[in-house]
Amino acid sequence: MLDAMTLAEALTIEDMRTAHERIRPHINRTPVLQSQYLNDLTGAELFFKCENFQEAGAFKVRGACNAVFGLSEEAAQRGVCTHSSGNHALSLSYAAGRRGIPCNVVMPRTAPQAKKDAVRRYGGTITECEPSTSSREAVFAEVQAATGGEFVHPYNDPRVICGQATCSAEMLEQTGGVDAVVAPIGGGGMISGTCLTLSNLAPEVKIYAAEPEQADDAARSFRAGHIIADDAPETIADGLKVPLKENTWHFVSNFVTDVPTVSEQEIVDAMKLTWKYLRVVMEPSSAVPLAAILKNPDLFRGKRVGVIITGGNVDLDRLPWTLG
Amino acid sequence: MLDAMTLAEALTIEDMRTAHERIRPHINRTPVLQSQYLNDLTGAELFFKCENFQEAGAFKVRGACNAVFGLSEEAAQRGVCTHSSGNHALSLSYAAGRRGIPCNVVMPRTAPQAKKDAVRRYGGTITECEPSTSSREAVFAEVQAATGGEFVHPYNDPRVICGQATCSAEMLEQTGGVDAVVAPIGGGGMISGTCLTLSNLAPEVKIYAAEPEQADDAARSFRAGHIIADDAPETIADGLKVPLKENTWHFVSNFVTDVPTVSEQEIVDAMKLTWKYLRVVMEPSSAVPLAAILKNPDLFRGKRVGVIITGGNVDLDRLPWTLG
Repeated sequence: MLDAMTLAEALTIEDMRTAHERIRPHINRTPVLQSQYLNDLTGAELFFKCENFQEAGAFKVRGACNAVFGLSEEAAQRGVCTHSSGNHALSLSYAAGRRGIPCNVVMPRTAPQAKKDAVRRYGGTITECEPSTSSREAVFAEVQAATGGEFVHPYNDPRVICGQATCSAEMLEQTGGVDAVVAPIGGGGMISGTCLTLSNLAPEVKIYAAEPEQADDAARSFRAGHIIADDAPETIADGLKVPLKENTWHFVSNFVTDVPTVSEQEIVDAMKLTWKYLRVVMEPSSAVPLAAILKNPDLFRGKRVGVIITGGNVDLDRLPWTLG
Repeated sequence: MLDAMTLAEALTIEDMRTAHERIRPHINRTPVLQSQYLNDLTGAELFFKCENFQEAGAFKVRGACNAVFGLSEEAAQRGVCTHSSGNHALSLSYAAGRRGIPCNVVMPRTAPQAKKDAVRRYGGTITECEPSTSSREAVFAEVQAATGGEFVHPYNDPRVICGQATCSAEMLEQTGGVDAVVAPIGGGGMISGTCLTLSNLAPEVKIYAAEPEQADDAARSFRAGHIIADDAPETIADGLKVPLKENTWHFVSNFVTDVPTVSEQEIVDAMKLTWKYLRVVMEPSSAVPLAAILKNPDLFRGKRVGVIITGGNVDLDRLPWTLG
């Protein structure tokens, strides 16, 4: 097996195209929405690629479907497994359910009940762990050994990166081209896929990875020139707490233009603006790009800017602006 | 001038096509979204036509744009005027702003501040009245006399009906055809446009006008065979409180299959379901169709059903499921 760095470097635009053909029957070609109000507010022309409208509510179905439907028949029989408290758990369960194979997910017992319910609805099996890295790794090792399932990492897996890469390929087609793309960064799966596609198909497009100040490990890694992992960051953008890994670092370090950061309040404000004027239900992580655009108007004024709305799984009973 | 009944009867599918060409540069071709979860829940294949993604947040920009852009240069100089506390006020202001002509709106002083702000943002001028029919009519007569502006009724105007008719024309193209369409009914503008288009282009499609039990004047009119107007109905679906008028009654009485009604709780439940699983921000009125489908599963099981999400202007600080 090739080492990890080589895997990321070896990915080509043909891998993205193969992924797109493979997953097309299982994903939504999500719409690109615009808002004149938000354009006027930012001075830019914004194109919101709405991945919250994927069936499992997040772009992660792209990578999960590519991994699941790329398995050989023999490997597929043993199913897939992963650890995730969030959208990757739902998405892998969805993909496995579409193929009719087992999916085992290790989730912290403290994960939101709604996420657990969704995993089970899609046919996934949950094994709970304590909310610590050591417990998660120990429990996951047991599950993997017992099932023999194929491990699909939430973002460091090249198959996953190729799946996520299909999102910006659609966006290029739907918009006719942009000057910049802004997406949130957590572990870097979406950003890596965006880099893979744009560096090949539209290398002039600037790529901004937007991040919460309170989980700014990617920004610090970007400036330092090597991966810096935070110790348990806390942010309302709960999809963005995880650190970069070697495959995503390859793309971030080579193709990302900058990593702007935003405060918690800026995230909530941008989230509410988007709900109000674009009228989509999206999670706090998805508001980080608009917050970064509003904070750095000179970077984007007069530009055509793609904004990836990464997901829409949010607790409607606990919206941040209704909490005391 | 022809009398009103004759006006509605005289409308043809060519009027819809003319309207569509006229308004195309000024409206969004809104996407049709689907949710496997909601399909499983209802046993139907649901196609949600998302008019909440119009710039002013509602299908009413279609009718407003058709009226505004159909005016002669001479008439346009005097501008347009209307009375509305809701989406028609925003939409007419938006349309007039696009053409660069004056728009005067009479709104009750009790209308939501957010709606007033939006009217002004689009360039509309508000004259406030007391929240009563007599005050509204008196103030509106003054405004119209002072400005000489063209009155564009929120729904009884044939130009408005033709504009709304473009929505289901797009839906037919986007879905490749449906067995039934369900839309909410208030004054009947959207339903009338739907009838105009479907009775010509797809006469086999059943048309359901869904209505709140607490504002069931259309259901009672439908059964009685003549217009019955409620006296100040009260419902969370605040876009649906207005009565039918002669032009919309023509379509309702001739082309609607049935007028199912739903309770306030059923509306709130359907609204939350749509926010959660379709992940769109839409107002209570727009949840009435899904509530009717859930309440009458036998009518829709196994069918391809178009559902019109009419608007997305809602107070995010006062969502019905977060109120005590």
